[in-house]
Amino acid sequence: MAKRLGAQTLAPERPVTVAAGAAVVGKTEGEGPLWERFDEISQDSWFGQKSWEAAESVMLRRCYDLLCEKSRETPELLLSGDLQSQCTGSTFALRDADVPLLGLYGACSTMGEAMGLGALLVDGGAFRSVCALTSSHFCAAERQFRAPLEYGSQRSPTAQRTATAAGAVLLRAGGDGPRVTAFTVGRITDAGVTDTTNMGAALAPAAWETLRAHCTDTGRALTDYDAVITGDLGRFGHELLEALAAREGAEFPTVFTDCGMLLYRSELQDVHAGGSGCGCSAAVFAGHILKCLQSGFWKRILFAPTGALMSAVTSQQGESIPGICHALTIESAEVAQ
Amino acid sequence: MAKRLGAQTLAPERPVTVAAGAAVVGKTEGEGPLWERFDEISQDSWFGQKSWEAAESVMLRRCYDLLCEKSRETPELLLSGDLQSQCTGSTFALRDADVPLLGLYGACSTMGEAMGLGALLVDGGAFRSVCALTSSHFCAAERQFRAPLEYGSQRSPTAQRTATAAGAVLLRAGGDGPRVTAFTVGRITDAGVTDTTNMGAALAPAAWETLRAHCTDTGRALTDYDAVITGDLGRFGHELLEALAAREGAEFPTVFTDCGMLLYRSELQDVHAGGSGCGCSAAVFAGHILKCLQSGFWKRILFAPTGALMSAVTSQQGESIPGICHALTIESAEVAQ
Repeated sequence: MAKRLGAQTLAPERPVTVAAGAAVVGKTEGEGPLWERFDEISQDSWFGQKSWEAAESVMLRRCYDLLCEKSRETPELLLSGDLQSQCTGSTFALRDADVPLLGLYGACSTMGEAMGLGALLVDGGAFRSVCALTSSHFCAAERQFRAPLEYGSQRSPTAQRTATAAGAVLLRAGGDGPRVTAFTVGRITDAGVTDTTNMGAALAPAAWETLRAHCTDTGRALTDYDAVITGDLGRFGHELLEALAAREGAEFPTVFTDCGMLLYRSELQDVHAGGSGCGCSAAVFAGHILKCLQSGFWKRILFAPTGALMSAVTSQQGESIPGICHALTIESAEVAQ
Repeated sequence: MAKRLGAQTLAPERPVTVAAGAAVVGKTEGEGPLWERFDEISQDSWFGQKSWEAAESVMLRRCYDLLCEKSRETPELLLSGDLQSQCTGSTFALRDADVPLLGLYGACSTMGEAMGLGALLVDGGAFRSVCALTSSHFCAAERQFRAPLEYGSQRSPTAQRTATAAGAVLLRAGGDGPRVTAFTVGRITDAGVTDTTNMGAALAPAAWETLRAHCTDTGRALTDYDAVITGDLGRFGHELLEALAAREGAEFPTVFTDCGMLLYRSELQDVHAGGSGCGCSAAVFAGHILKCLQSGFWKRILFAPTGALMSAVTSQQGESIPGICHALTIESAEVAQ
């Protein structure tokens, strides 16, 4: 039974471990600094399919199959979602998985939502093993949210690149591995930003709201973590988050960064403000962050993926961009005990 | 801690009650047989807004506000989703609710997913009260999935009408009211149907898979229920479900019906095969079914909303329609004890 800490944070009382992770990425992501952390890098953006949408599903399915192979286990429940309209990226990937599935939508925060919810369900005794997984595909997302690639639209310097990437983790009751020890559920925060080429500005206030709520609920400071890693704010969003936090006197840990800044070589790759998309934080977590925890390099981190809850339709109708951020404390086993 | 029954079914061990419900519907739905069961009927399909999408959000927000008024309580968590791309119907409705939110996508099964997940989270001790809510809007859905209304497209006799409706329930730990005593999580079932004007055919196999799994897991027969009510199969889908069930020797309870058949007067209203949309089963449950349980008219029912996990894009790409169905046992307090 999870312990409530304040209004937004839950602390599992039983050990919930991140037993395994898998990450599959596209060519551009495979040319970034984390390339050797991923299980597979595809040189074919189409993943052998005839549409970008089907390509995303094949990538996510491959990631799920790898996770099952690595963990030698079929999970009891799947928690998944993605950016495609009606979440077809994940439902088509998993349609013949033959495992109970609950679909989620948290935009680019989906991995945080899935891992947090999975931890609560494992802690509550409902399931012994839950797979949290999500994906995004640059080409499918451009067509979905902006314009088909064939138009050759120019991108703004503040725009981010939706990662072609999939990530999956297996959450298990007990056993070895880093543990999910707290989950701060985000509230929607809408700062009134309407510029869809500057998602970082729309999302930084949501990220700060959740980090602040997490610190209030748990009595911890950001400096109590070896690393605080948001998802998908990109370079400008991260700067804004730093400014918002500093304005309220927050101090930063040694590693205070963002999955969107970790995925690419910003100085060499044409990715503007950095990465975004459900798959960005999912693959960076499953490929990179998890290994840093497994090796003991980091003992306690805060992983806080952010999501922009708009659509092409709402933006065309002049609406602002609501954001949400879910945060998880993940600790190596010796610290968590 | 929920008790596992078989591969797909969870039984909360603590009492999780459906403490309150609220339903808001549009004009056509208010002309159906359940009209006096709904809290509000709007004569304005626009709900005072300039777009159908914004109308849906205003309707859902009104439903949420009514639920808070009726239950005299702000829930600790919101579980919501809808049919609009990127689930903006619900996120825009709730963007200033200031309550932690987890977004779901289960298409027309969303109410079942939200109520089941909410019951597990309340049972697991994570939250004392959870609001499950969802909506759909006929005009927004037509534009989203088929064609703008202005085109005046003809509809097939097997097509269903997406309900303009919103439903919300409050799930609470303990207290008075009917109880959620089992939740069968669906698996995706794809029977290869590609006709998007005949969703009932695509969804009936998913409904039967889940009903069968529920009976296997719990050791119950459908006839152990006062009523078995699926969500959104419509008239033809329901006939197909009966045929699938009969083929395996299943017997039916006295009341074996579908929310899509309950919502409209099929003989008088131009709704073809019946209702569909997230809001259909949500409003029929919150407005009608819940009252039948509260009054003791029904002691034990099985509520099984179904969802079609396709999008306009996947259909245009020639893909089939994967379906999912989540089922909940809900019992009046005296039976549940």
